[in-house]
Amino acid sequence: MTVAYADVTAAAGRIGAHVLRTPVLEVTPELVLKLELLQHSGSFKVRGAFNRMLAAGALPESGVIAASGGNHGLAVAYAARALGVRAEIFVPEVTSPIKVAGLRALGARINQVGAIYSEAADAAAKRAAETGALSVHAYDQAEVVAGQGTTGLELMEQTGGVDTVLVAVGGGGFAAGVALGSGAVGGGPRIVAVEPERIPTFHEALKAGGPVSVTVSGVAADSLGATALGGIAYDLLAAAGARSVLVTEDAIVAARRTLWEKHRLAAEPGGATAYAALLSGAYRPEPGERVAVLVCGSNTDPATLATG
Amino acid sequence: MTVAYADVTAAAGRIGAHVLRTPVLEVTPELVLKLELLQHSGSFKVRGAFNRMLAAGALPESGVIAASGGNHGLAVAYAARALGVRAEIFVPEVTSPIKVAGLRALGARINQVGAIYSEAADAAAKRAAETGALSVHAYDQAEVVAGQGTTGLELMEQTGGVDTVLVAVGGGGFAAGVALGSGAVGGGPRIVAVEPERIPTFHEALKAGGPVSVTVSGVAADSLGATALGGIAYDLLAAAGARSVLVTEDAIVAARRTLWEKHRLAAEPGGATAYAALLSGAYRPEPGERVAVLVCGSNTDPATLATG
Repeated sequence: MTVAYADVTAAAGRIGAHVLRTPVLEVTPELVLKLELLQHSGSFKVRGAFNRMLAAGALPESGVIAASGGNHGLAVAYAARALGVRAEIFVPEVTSPIKVAGLRALGARINQVGAIYSEAADAAAKRAAETGALSVHAYDQAEVVAGQGTTGLELMEQTGGVDTVLVAVGGGGFAAGVALGSGAVGGGPRIVAVEPERIPTFHEALKAGGPVSVTVSGVAADSLGATALGGIAYDLLAAAGARSVLVTEDAIVAARRTLWEKHRLAAEPGGATAYAALLSGAYRPEPGERVAVLVCGSNTDPATLATG
Repeated sequence: MTVAYADVTAAAGRIGAHVLRTPVLEVTPELVLKLELLQHSGSFKVRGAFNRMLAAGALPESGVIAASGGNHGLAVAYAARALGVRAEIFVPEVTSPIKVAGLRALGARINQVGAIYSEAADAAAKRAAETGALSVHAYDQAEVVAGQGTTGLELMEQTGGVDTVLVAVGGGGFAAGVALGSGAVGGGPRIVAVEPERIPTFHEALKAGGPVSVTVSGVAADSLGATALGGIAYDLLAAAGARSVLVTEDAIVAARRTLWEKHRLAAEPGGATAYAALLSGAYRPEPGERVAVLVCGSNTDPATLATG
């Protein structure tokens, strides 16, 4: 395995002063929500970004580079500003002006290149090779996965252990890190990897025996819309025996609305996807099973909460 | 004193199964936010409502009565539904249809009476005398203050103690309860009672040596808009040596925006008022002083967060 439990504990020590230890909300004795949506930059992504940068030691003069108009871009820009280094973020031309403005407000240099994400990513890779900047991948990098895994480590410390962890999957960096950090690789809690029906990267990877490309669409595509699971994520989730659960678009929308109306949590669709599995019954716990749900992103327009 | 520390610990035992132990977010070693805005019904008010009802023993057939179109009304309606008793809520005719709908959704019977709050309150008192329903006051009732105080008790347990607690004041039930529950009456943390300049109930009470009527206006009037501090609150806050701090309208608006942009917390203006004292510098901690801010309400239209 390219990433081990010790890498997660090392990451925790490295990034502890820079990220929030996000609180857990015990809704009932059987249900805990980890409020990772309150994390700096609005998602867990900042954990992996800091770990990648801090593990690199002295950062190059040219700073860091990432490709993402979404949570990963915001996280890298946030971490770069905090560490006083340059960030160059590549996004496709279609990226909304609001997201570009958000990145710019964090001091990042923005390059809008290409019609789709992969073209922006290719341009970012080319640029990194030219400038020597440190590339921070959105999910398929050992330090990034280890950083995300600190969420799982915290969850276990804060709860004293749970039976099951529900976690959303896009590229799988978060779910894989959490599987590692929570001890699920090697006999800890059950990992339930929740995906929108329209972005079944893990579901299809399980069937194929490895990551395969899927078509991406739906309400959560802006945060979970990777076209394939990462290789590191596949290995870790398979090793953890993670269970795949798919949820409908309606279930995600309903989960988001319920998180707001019942708990006053302003989750984005991807951030509400794990909760959707529980609320819709796509995952049904046994009586007495203690479940933790990771609510993992809040980069959303609050105006859309009023109507779900 | 009409309420004592033992009343708060008794309240905690009574209401524990019905309210959330709201999490704390450690922003820095010197700053903790208690996320009471995530409480059931969207504010701390449900603590006092449950305590008043459960302390009464068997509730009358006619249920409970309260006057409030705001957080208190929602809390009483929520608690009544949870305990399976009727709730009759009196609100002035000007109460917004959205708030009336919210109360109705909780199963409460709504009576819109009078042009202003005091007329609705008078009608509620008259009705309670007729029907024998249990009246739940918004702040000036021993069981209500003791219930709100469980927030302070929790805060001390969760943090291991802080130097200072910043808490918003309207009628003062929350601040007084927190002063009691945190141990500030008798030498615990410093209580900083924060009020909008336009609703200075505690500020004026301190000057006058007791509660006096004030003019009520401004962005936080819907939740902090009591016309006078409660008598119980005055006694407890005076006994705790609470410091009075006033904040401007702009400071409240800025605090609300920052809570959203930086921490993804959807506070209402009243819920952001304590934080406004810190953010604006109206209260300046000493170096190393460990401060807790109670973020206490989220009954807000999320659409208004986008623009502050």
